[in-house]
Amino acid sequence: MTEPTNVLKVNGERLWQTIRRSGEIGPGRTTGLCRLALTDPDRDMRDLFVSWCEAAGLTVSVDRVGNIFARRAGSDDGLAPVLIGSHLDTQAAGGKYDGILGVLAGLEVVRTLNERGIETKRPIEIVNWTNEEGARFTPPMVASAAFAGVFDVDWVLALQDDDGAVFGEELQRIGYAGDTPVGGREIDAYYELHIEQGPVLEAEGLNLGVVVGGYQTVGMHIDIHGETAHSGPTPMDKRRNALVGAAMLIVAANEIGWTYHGQEGKSTAPRLTCWPNKPGILPDYAQVTIDFRSPTKETTAQMLADFEAAIPGCAERAQVEIEIAERWTFGSEVFDPDCIDTLKAAAADQDIACREILSQAGHDAYNMAKICPTALLFSPCRDGITHNEAEHIELDYTLPSVNVLLNAVLARANR
Amino acid sequence: MTEPTNVLKVNGERLWQTIRRSGEIGPGRTTGLCRLALTDPDRDMRDLFVSWCEAAGLTVSVDRVGNIFARRAGSDDGLAPVLIGSHLDTQAAGGKYDGILGVLAGLEVVRTLNERGIETKRPIEIVNWTNEEGARFTPPMVASAAFAGVFDVDWVLALQDDDGAVFGEELQRIGYAGDTPVGGREIDAYYELHIEQGPVLEAEGLNLGVVVGGYQTVGMHIDIHGETAHSGPTPMDKRRNALVGAAMLIVAANEIGWTYHGQEGKSTAPRLTCWPNKPGILPDYAQVTIDFRSPTKETTAQMLADFEAAIPGCAERAQVEIEIAERWTFGSEVFDPDCIDTLKAAAADQDIACREILSQAGHDAYNMAKICPTALLFSPCRDGITHNEAEHIELDYTLPSVNVLLNAVLARANR
Repeated sequence: MTEPTNVLKVNGERLWQTIRRSGEIGPGRTTGLCRLALTDPDRDMRDLFVSWCEAAGLTVSVDRVGNIFARRAGSDDGLAPVLIGSHLDTQAAGGKYDGILGVLAGLEVVRTLNERGIETKRPIEIVNWTNEEGARFTPPMVASAAFAGVFDVDWVLALQDDDGAVFGEELQRIGYAGDTPVGGREIDAYYELHIEQGPVLEAEGLNLGVVVGGYQTVGMHIDIHGETAHSGPTPMDKRRNALVGAAMLIVAANEIGWTYHGQEGKSTAPRLTCWPNKPGILPDYAQVTIDFRSPTKETTAQMLADFEAAIPGCAERAQVEIEIAERWTFGSEVFDPDCIDTLKAAAADQDIACREILSQAGHDAYNMAKICPTALLFSPCRDGITHNEAEHIELDYTLPSVNVLLNAVLARANR
Repeated sequence: MTEPTNVLKVNGERLWQTIRRSGEIGPGRTTGLCRLALTDPDRDMRDLFVSWCEAAGLTVSVDRVGNIFARRAGSDDGLAPVLIGSHLDTQAAGGKYDGILGVLAGLEVVRTLNERGIETKRPIEIVNWTNEEGARFTPPMVASAAFAGVFDVDWVLALQDDDGAVFGEELQRIGYAGDTPVGGREIDAYYELHIEQGPVLEAEGLNLGVVVGGYQTVGMHIDIHGETAHSGPTPMDKRRNALVGAAMLIVAANEIGWTYHGQEGKSTAPRLTCWPNKPGILPDYAQVTIDFRSPTKETTAQMLADFEAAIPGCAERAQVEIEIAERWTFGSEVFDPDCIDTLKAAAADQDIACREILSQAGHDAYNMAKICPTALLFSPCRDGITHNEAEHIELDYTLPSVNVLLNAVLARANR
């Protein structure tokens, strides 16, 4: 098969070198990264990213929640820009590609346009969204959500991490408390390239997935209130141990995940806090985070209904009060058919086989889909492993999606 | 009925005033105390206790693990001393009497002997044991255990709290890193007065329980190892969530507690830690603390066997590795018949009705019983509530046990 020659290609080696350099900042315990939002490693990575953008002739601005925008002017610069982006922060035991690929692929797109002397009608902006992971400040994707008008800026700035550090103060500390307004401007389109974080593409030997929808996700924080008492004399029927109530909820949620496993349903309990959490005393308070996901609204709703039906039994057995303190959903947002078509056309031009796919994880693209035409594309990752230091990709099977991104953005930016 | 006149009595008002003063140091969130070991409030209470002891003419010494001994010389001062003691530290949501009564009753005994000009043959020492609660440094009763030779002193000094603060350094910081050796000297007898921390005495209208044995307790820390992964795409059959494994263990332990409820069996899960414990990622590590108690060795052994039988199923269902990291037992120690007789004789002399009772909680007396004749006596507490800020006692039903303590110690110290 002859290589198609009528399409633009990025410099794979340069992209790979850039990603490897990022992989040195904020080392994890083994082979991955621990680059939590607004920590020193996040600042170091931001500084490096800004220096790269400035070297590429881009104009960098930072908004009030720390989102970084690096702008390449268009020939008709008053037109709304095309955005390419993702996030540079990681989980506490994260990989070197989740989010990072999407931002640095954007940089590579711009570098390629620069060296070919290609001007676009619309401006192009690369964006790094703050705290996508939510690993330090809950909830995740909070800064793209603020950009999309979902959250109030002051509310975001007041978020605290587990040690009481404040989002806005940490932004100040690392020098990324910007002064531009958060959102409120017209965006022509948003493109996000991300590793799949699942096994589908690899299993099917494909290097590109065009996301046409998301798993329906409902998440919640649940408060459990009991009563402190001595762990010795207190008889079982007098015990109101909040931790026991929390454990029952986790087990119930886990069983519901298994019940819907055949329909690709999943349940997660990633987090539990408890007070006083000391030997010798029954805890009087616990909070658990739990979420349910499936490919369809109906299945997720049924999982949630099953869980809500299980709560009173847990409360009664553990003799505690259980209350859903906060609930969120995502996945029902719709990606834009026109943007999806630009991806498919670019793939066809390059003879890159692709499939339509559903996103199982949350992404900043969900927030952007609320305010502008948005597309999300996936490249494979080894064994589908992610949020694990063993997360791994190779250049050869990543490059096709980056080239598709380049050509799709180029087409969109000239409309 | 005429009041017996041939027995000595403490000054109840003075005792009560002393306990109330203690209740002002380290206030909790509501009506109780938060006076964790080796914190500033613990230092303040120690300073006050030492000043009281010195005012009573006692010689104060502090050993290397911070145990405070306040000595009243005997007429034959080379003889082994009689010790009276308990602890002045509390739980994070503790009451004003648990432990505190035992130490301050000892002080009242000595004050009473002083004002009556009564000399004893043997010296009498009041002791405050460090970190009985184990609420800050695990395990509980660690400093009396070191005194009894159960734990190595350097191991105790190296213990860390949840924030990484080191036992030995905290002792230094609050000025209670003493220089006398820990244990290794002859003790004639040890008496500990404690609130019952259970409902038996109140229910039977008795003001004194003479402890003749302890609930058989086995406790353990359990490590659970899984693998981090994304909380979204990872299918249920690939999930190895350590928190789910921990929750299953807690639920299993709780059910076993209920199974043996009719035999007064109890199970407790007071504490769980988890890493990374963040939204969006499956935790790869958790640790739970679990214990089982019952009145008999056989029942506790059966509870433990049931639990151990449940572990493989939890490990399989959660797809994690589960390992018992550390195990401890207490409750099989035997209190001394002679010391018990001194208590019963003193009660009879004062026409105080009493019953034999089992201890359901751990006490420093268990450690002391390993190295010297030991007796433990209980006074009632309201509704059996303890390790809760609502813990409550009244002087009128507490005073009889303090008078029994006084006369029993006096008899023993003249032997």
